[in-house]
Amino acid sequence: MKLYDHPRAPSPRRVRIFLAEKGLEVPRETVSIEDGGQLQPAFLARNPAGTVPLLELDDGTRIGESIAICRYFEALQPQPSLFGQGAVEQATVEMWNRRVEFDLLLAVFAAVRNAHPAFAGRALPGPVPVDQLPALAERSRGIAERMCDWLDRHLAGQRFLAGERFSVADISLLVGLDFARVGKLRLTEGRPQLLRWHTEVSARPSATA
Amino acid sequence: MKLYDHPRAPSPRRVRIFLAEKGLEVPRETVSIEDGGQLQPAFLARNPAGTVPLLELDDGTRIGESIAICRYFEALQPQPSLFGQGAVEQATVEMWNRRVEFDLLLAVFAAVRNAHPAFAGRALPGPVPVDQLPALAERSRGIAERMCDWLDRHLAGQRFLAGERFSVADISLLVGLDFARVGKLRLTEGRPQLLRWHTEVSARPSATA
Repeated sequence: MKLYDHPRAPSPRRVRIFLAEKGLEVPRETVSIEDGGQLQPAFLARNPAGTVPLLELDDGTRIGESIAICRYFEALQPQPSLFGQGAVEQATVEMWNRRVEFDLLLAVFAAVRNAHPAFAGRALPGPVPVDQLPALAERSRGIAERMCDWLDRHLAGQRFLAGERFSVADISLLVGLDFARVGKLRLTEGRPQLLRWHTEVSARPSATA
Repeated sequence: MKLYDHPRAPSPRRVRIFLAEKGLEVPRETVSIEDGGQLQPAFLARNPAGTVPLLELDDGTRIGESIAICRYFEALQPQPSLFGQGAVEQATVEMWNRRVEFDLLLAVFAAVRNAHPAFAGRALPGPVPVDQLPALAERSRGIAERMCDWLDRHLAGQRFLAGERFSVADISLLVGLDFARVGKLRLTEGRPQLLRWHTEVSARPSATA
């Protein structure tokens, strides 16, 4: 088994944190995104989406998409559960993970990729050039800010996003908040509950994975 | 238990198809999106995201987000499995469902909501007005078209998106392709494998749920 990885990109970090929480070690190979390694024919043959992370199993099966990779490991080793146990908790984790993905993580990605000079002509991942839309960057910053207002209220009532147990939704939020700094978005400022949550989750050993 | 629903919006349709495939019936209440019912205080108190579908359990627990609702029912009644069985199939379903969501379903939503006059000032769901970005509509049409090129190649090798078994990823794709017509996107045209797939999946009894 091999995990195609990158030490600074946000999506591979989600998988590394997930693995660290499970206490799993997986052989990793860094794809040199700096040199466009994820868009070279050799890698595109493995993952036509042109994205890392990608998990390759020994029989050649390939799993792309961070959360799909995480689900593979959840099924292999259910404990500690990071997708929830039982119907209600599983649904609650899925709900908060999706809310955080759509209105925070993807919004932060859009805010950074449509504005930062490093992503000129690459506003979306993948092999096809996509022009930046500065108006979308601005709109996305607003979406992320409003989502964090909601999360700040939500976290006033509970320790983690989906309740009293740490879950994959917390991983998505941590990666989103930290990557937001690339776009000079300091989303915990003025949001005491979100800051309390961020401080606690950042102190977990997995945060540095 | 009650499912807040709408007969023509695409996201509630995902849940209805899912329930029909499981052979489950759930009491439903239509939210009058035409009159902004999903943005009224009574509904926002139930789901601050201001979106349908929403599932309310008898103990007051509320589950938003289509796929989170589907996961609740998958856990309640695992057969027939629509999220896959075993680690590899579960991960494969998750991967294709996400690819279809991000680069087809969300792209189609963005294409329609950023261009169609019915969504002026409401380019995103939720209680906060969001201006349309015509350039984003155009970009999103291109993303959806390119994704369908990939799906057409992918479906040449297999019956359904995640293999030989129908899954939630197929539901997401069906809803995306059908909703695309609102934006005058005819995504099966010139794509024989995608058309073959669409014809077969549209003939399932669940497609009219």
